[in-house]
Amino acid sequence: MKVLVINAGSSSLKYQLYDMTDESVLASGRVERIGMDSSIVTHEPAGKPEVRQVSEILDHVTAVKRVMEMLTNPEFGAIAHMSEIDAVGHRVVHGGEAFSSSVLVTLEVKLEIRKLFDLAPLHNPAHMMGISAVEANLPGVPQAVVFDTAFHQTMPNTSYLYPIPTVLYRRHQVRRYGFHGTSHSYVSAQAAAYLRKPLESLKMITCHIGNGASCTAILNGKSYDTSMGMTPLEGLMMGTRSGDLDPAIVPFVMNKEELTLNEVNSMLNKHSGMLAVSGISSDMREVTEAMEEGDKNAKLAFDMYCYRVKKYIGSYAAAMNGLDVLVFTAGVGENSAALRKAVCEGITFLGIELDDKRNAERRKDTREITVAGSKVKVLVVPTNEELLIARDTFRLVKQSRTS
Amino acid sequence: MKVLVINAGSSSLKYQLYDMTDESVLASGRVERIGMDSSIVTHEPAGKPEVRQVSEILDHVTAVKRVMEMLTNPEFGAIAHMSEIDAVGHRVVHGGEAFSSSVLVTLEVKLEIRKLFDLAPLHNPAHMMGISAVEANLPGVPQAVVFDTAFHQTMPNTSYLYPIPTVLYRRHQVRRYGFHGTSHSYVSAQAAAYLRKPLESLKMITCHIGNGASCTAILNGKSYDTSMGMTPLEGLMMGTRSGDLDPAIVPFVMNKEELTLNEVNSMLNKHSGMLAVSGISSDMREVTEAMEEGDKNAKLAFDMYCYRVKKYIGSYAAAMNGLDVLVFTAGVGENSAALRKAVCEGITFLGIELDDKRNAERRKDTREITVAGSKVKVLVVPTNEELLIARDTFRLVKQSRTS
Repeated sequence: MKVLVINAGSSSLKYQLYDMTDESVLASGRVERIGMDSSIVTHEPAGKPEVRQVSEILDHVTAVKRVMEMLTNPEFGAIAHMSEIDAVGHRVVHGGEAFSSSVLVTLEVKLEIRKLFDLAPLHNPAHMMGISAVEANLPGVPQAVVFDTAFHQTMPNTSYLYPIPTVLYRRHQVRRYGFHGTSHSYVSAQAAAYLRKPLESLKMITCHIGNGASCTAILNGKSYDTSMGMTPLEGLMMGTRSGDLDPAIVPFVMNKEELTLNEVNSMLNKHSGMLAVSGISSDMREVTEAMEEGDKNAKLAFDMYCYRVKKYIGSYAAAMNGLDVLVFTAGVGENSAALRKAVCEGITFLGIELDDKRNAERRKDTREITVAGSKVKVLVVPTNEELLIARDTFRLVKQSRTS
Repeated sequence: MKVLVINAGSSSLKYQLYDMTDESVLASGRVERIGMDSSIVTHEPAGKPEVRQVSEILDHVTAVKRVMEMLTNPEFGAIAHMSEIDAVGHRVVHGGEAFSSSVLVTLEVKLEIRKLFDLAPLHNPAHMMGISAVEANLPGVPQAVVFDTAFHQTMPNTSYLYPIPTVLYRRHQVRRYGFHGTSHSYVSAQAAAYLRKPLESLKMITCHIGNGASCTAILNGKSYDTSMGMTPLEGLMMGTRSGDLDPAIVPFVMNKEELTLNEVNSMLNKHSGMLAVSGISSDMREVTEAMEEGDKNAKLAFDMYCYRVKKYIGSYAAAMNGLDVLVFTAGVGENSAALRKAVCEGITFLGIELDDKRNAERRKDTREITVAGSKVKVLVVPTNEELLIARDTFRLVKQSRTS
């Protein structure tokens, strides 16, 4: 079975085509600047050189059409005909309380996703455009949706409720949802398999640290608490997001700087975090380089970033009354030995003994970076959200055919 | 030396008169509803019955005048003449970055406190009215100011900076200040003395849990991090304050409910926390009672409240890479055995072994509530912010006389 995975943004669309017989990627790529006259399609067929095309792509329907042309191109395509695509899986950021697992797209599912536009105004409408564009281009092909929030639906109400007037939960669904669920779920299962222990027997904290970043406390194999909240703004300091903040700063700054609601949102989501403190970049690699060259603001940004990761690890160890396994994943978590070292060396009291040599190794596989006897095991686990989406889609379509 | 301690609010004024030879309280009381025609003065002379008077008190100058009348009343007063008051100490909530310790009031000090009106609009202007009212009533008597923020001025920038555009710190002093500093400082010193160990040698977390609540990580005898932030809204869930929240909830709720900046501030400060979740009360005693009678929302409020205390303790243990001493203080911290039990039993992994019997004892002194061999010592230490203010005032006035 061949599964196409799509992650549709408001002006972009990423895709991967998987052959599920061996989970290999046949081709991947992205469409950028949708809605503008010089849209760019970047297509990467497996084992062939990258192809780049600039043209006018005014909407998502046309974007998916171009993807189909790329995938079926005789020269650099991956399949002979669109009909070879058996199913399409979409990443959907917000599943609210309606979805605690991936589902096949139906009319009801689409209505639910629409209901969640308010909670994820930047993401869910774009995902819906992706779903509709696939329907228009590949009529009759089954589609599945995989939610960033679904894994966290197991959180107890003590974790997901905010201590604010309850009418806000009833009327506007204000609660903690958490994100990166697909990744937290995947790496926790990988970590347990690597350690040859049942996931349910481990107190685990997974740190998904990329441009966005979140920590999850996983107890009995389930998400027990997570640092992102109603939106992906809460929690850790991130590339351009502030993370946790005195909530009173929001009205204070709006008043002082005469900001609108959109402006303060934009400030906290796009102009804060590592970028704001370092004054250099939202990218951990660039900040680390500047720090190594002696830049003080870069050092401050790095230290604040690591400090906040440490505090969340301590906090979730307390939430679960202990810790067995700590997992680092995603761009920064997988690649920044400096971050992992700074975090782990600051919390040795938990029973973490980092193996400096193992930590410094540049590898792409799941591995332990603590010494043999370390009470708490620290692992680096490469995440692969696209593969997870492909797997869920494959499973759901197969189930629907046999039932 | 006799020292009068004053805590002036916008419509209230609390006072205590200390005899510093033995630190005894000669009289205490409060003026309520200042600015209204039926203001109430409640006066409690030591060893005599409480006196209550209702009259019109339109401003703070009149309020201090009434306090003087009470203190010098031949029947229920505590001194023969106003001239017996040697010094006055004021609680001031916000000292910004200007004050890292208590100081005598001078023109410069008053100007600095005025500069901080923006950061503490509900508190500092009222404190200034208190200072001016004392000047008017007791000309020439030295006054001191003791700041809630001063103890926390030792925090490193990794603790006190927020990852938001740096212009907000430079232009509007947006940073973490922390509050309850007088209490955190006092109980940490008391705890070290009780344990007969140098405070500098202990990794300590002090939990000041009253109607307002904050945790402080104390490393090398100094405040290293604290849960309240630029304002007293951040951090723990409190009686009526939300504490930590996804900052994106603020603009979201303002938009949905069409709230002004003042309204959202009021919602988060006065209508959230324990009160909002329990639907019953902001008072831990009433919530605990309702919980014991089977009320589910009271149980949820209690559980959320304790859960957030636990998470901060874990977080600060990680910040300091370990924990030796945990201190509970203030109204709830000193009196709620149920809270202490729920918190401590959830974080035994830190090396806390609660002694249930000791914890349940109703006492008013500093005491340990862990078993003899507990790796982490847990203490209950009664706080006394008024006494601390009296002591600082006494010390400053004595120093100024000898220098």
